[in-house]
Amino acid sequence: MRHDARIWDEVRRRARRLDRADPLAGLRDRFVVPDGLIYLDGNSLGLLPRGVAARVQHAVEVEWGQGLIGSWNTAGWFTQPARVGDRIGRLIGAPPGSVVVGDSTSVQLFNTLVAAARLRPDRSALVTDAANFPTDGYIAASVARTLGLNLVLVDPTDPFAMARELDDHLAVLTLSHVDYRTGVLHDMAAVTAAAHHAGGVVVWDLAHSAGAVPVDLIAADADLAVGCSYKYLNGGPGAPAFGFVHPRWHDVADPPLTGWLGHESPFALDPEFRPAAGASRLRIGTPPVLSLTALDAALDVFDDIDVALVRAKSLALTDLFIELAEATLTASGFEVVVPRDHRLRGSQVCLRHPHAYPVVQALIAAGVVGDYREPDLARFGFTPLTLRFGDVVDAVAVLEDVMRSEAWRDPRYALRSEVT
Amino acid sequence: MRHDARIWDEVRRRARRLDRADPLAGLRDRFVVPDGLIYLDGNSLGLLPRGVAARVQHAVEVEWGQGLIGSWNTAGWFTQPARVGDRIGRLIGAPPGSVVVGDSTSVQLFNTLVAAARLRPDRSALVTDAANFPTDGYIAASVARTLGLNLVLVDPTDPFAMARELDDHLAVLTLSHVDYRTGVLHDMAAVTAAAHHAGGVVVWDLAHSAGAVPVDLIAADADLAVGCSYKYLNGGPGAPAFGFVHPRWHDVADPPLTGWLGHESPFALDPEFRPAAGASRLRIGTPPVLSLTALDAALDVFDDIDVALVRAKSLALTDLFIELAEATLTASGFEVVVPRDHRLRGSQVCLRHPHAYPVVQALIAAGVVGDYREPDLARFGFTPLTLRFGDVVDAVAVLEDVMRSEAWRDPRYALRSEVT
Repeated sequence: MRHDARIWDEVRRRARRLDRADPLAGLRDRFVVPDGLIYLDGNSLGLLPRGVAARVQHAVEVEWGQGLIGSWNTAGWFTQPARVGDRIGRLIGAPPGSVVVGDSTSVQLFNTLVAAARLRPDRSALVTDAANFPTDGYIAASVARTLGLNLVLVDPTDPFAMARELDDHLAVLTLSHVDYRTGVLHDMAAVTAAAHHAGGVVVWDLAHSAGAVPVDLIAADADLAVGCSYKYLNGGPGAPAFGFVHPRWHDVADPPLTGWLGHESPFALDPEFRPAAGASRLRIGTPPVLSLTALDAALDVFDDIDVALVRAKSLALTDLFIELAEATLTASGFEVVVPRDHRLRGSQVCLRHPHAYPVVQALIAAGVVGDYREPDLARFGFTPLTLRFGDVVDAVAVLEDVMRSEAWRDPRYALRSEVT
Repeated sequence: MRHDARIWDEVRRRARRLDRADPLAGLRDRFVVPDGLIYLDGNSLGLLPRGVAARVQHAVEVEWGQGLIGSWNTAGWFTQPARVGDRIGRLIGAPPGSVVVGDSTSVQLFNTLVAAARLRPDRSALVTDAANFPTDGYIAASVARTLGLNLVLVDPTDPFAMARELDDHLAVLTLSHVDYRTGVLHDMAAVTAAAHHAGGVVVWDLAHSAGAVPVDLIAADADLAVGCSYKYLNGGPGAPAFGFVHPRWHDVADPPLTGWLGHESPFALDPEFRPAAGASRLRIGTPPVLSLTALDAALDVFDDIDVALVRAKSLALTDLFIELAEATLTASGFEVVVPRDHRLRGSQVCLRHPHAYPVVQALIAAGVVGDYREPDLARFGFTPLTLRFGDVVDAVAVLEDVMRSEAWRDPRYALRSEVT
């Protein structure tokens, strides 16, 4: 840090002022933050909230160990997917009964995409963004193939491409609210209105927005939605996903994954499937209770949080990161990949660099955790509940040091892990 | 117990002899068994193995809390579905790489049934047993509808009905290895051979056999299979299910739930889905790591167990229960519903009774846990790893007492719970 010491001193003073004035500063204490770590990967796996371990232990030792099968009633396991769904619903503008938790995002997406297509049996096109997250693209392709629809992949770099596909062939449009690579935040209400105008229905993937960006599914008039709970919602590794069904489709939606717990009366052991009311028809089989309990406990941290403050801090954190990256990292070959316009920005910033993979590994070894995304992106997520402005300054300073010292050229950082 | 005291004394002496001679007697210590409880519901939710709580706590506090995203590599989260799958594979006659763990049984069944049907694109019939577990029937109906197949429901009370459907229309036959109500154990090898002879493929549901009954999927030449891990495998509430793909289909099976973790190289973020080798193509999205860790730890109890001894004890336990039930309970209106022939019996016994619902509730209140299944069955599962012959005697004695005292007529036992 000898280099440019005065600039960094000024920036650190500014960061300290911002941290002192931060109305969310106290929330960091609700999480376990490993010593010395600057964690910019809460968009892959959120930090552990402090209350979770004891709740999970109780579920194992008391609810399972002592209560056994009776805990389906007495510990509320049976109603957990709907109760936890309602807690998430409050964060994404969804009324009680319209969100349910369970299964993975991929399974929720298959189930909701088929249900959406069945709302438009006379239409032929399933439209998505060619740059959508792979699982979203794979599942959309599989649904199109299985139902005999045309899969239309829109080029996200062509500003007119999407509009051309919103015609009277449109059955379903499915998009991620925030792009996992570019961090672009779509205007959910405007895009949904355009798709509705063409007569289609829309399925949103909130993986990179729920918990970090204000979402109002009812105000945006979204038809169906899915989302991930282990990123900004901090539900733990592989925490179950969620599915949303707009109330206008509560008695109509016809999902294909007709597991017994989506039946209106599972224990009647009815030979005919009759779907439960509302989002509960997205329930499938027995949910992973221990993982779901961790998520339930993790959501406690959101109980008294104003999402508008979360958004304001998210934008301030990413603004600072962008400013510092442009001032100190472009000389090392980095390009900042994120919209400068707040209206178009999620809660992450990517830096494009030809050696992004070893750079990210060297950065992790130096205590700053981001992740790498093919082919050339170093990705950084900014979780306003736990990050300090000082962390942002430190992260950029460490990255500058990794580049200046050429630490990233160490051959061990080129070795690929199974999970990147 | 004043009534028939001599008979019960003789039976208890016999049970003590059987318990002293039981080669599996020591296994009970591997589980947490609540004081005073006789648990005959291990076929709904297995008891908590002693090692599980500490392993789950480690996963929460150390792997998640400290290791964070790095634990996908360092704690082996990424390979867990295949590793735990191989551990289950050893119990069901499946070679390494042919079983994977994740999702619910319902989701696994949908995925494998569509994959099975795609192996026979020129065939029109999806055949199952009309008395199959509801979720199996619902999912089979949904798959038939989605793919445009004819769903054929075979009457299990007609011994010739199944044979009539095994003709050249047969695409897929799907059955439960053990019937969840009658406890009937199907002859997997013979039924599979008959379906193969007709040119079809077979998907078995091992929910009520894995861990309690010897299963040899390769010897039986099964094509695909699914199963539940929270019953006789003791994986915990909602523990993830498993899926099996016979090696002859490892490069061919074409499941519809094409989540990114079923891709041969998930982190390449390939725009095209290319399925992973073997059963790993049944992976979908991110697995519920905490629930999967509980299952992994729970499987430790099977490490040194001889399944032939488990089967022998299971039959001896159910033989004793049937003998005592017929001697002491038929006068109270009970009918024993289970095949007497060992070759046809799973590890459970049902008692049919017109007041089965309140009888089961009164029995639970008296410390003997079974469950109720519509419309008139009291169902008892016999888990040879933890049950003693003395428990079987006590259970029947308590049930006889519940009937003699008419305790079951207490109005509170008629109140239905959400989960029965």
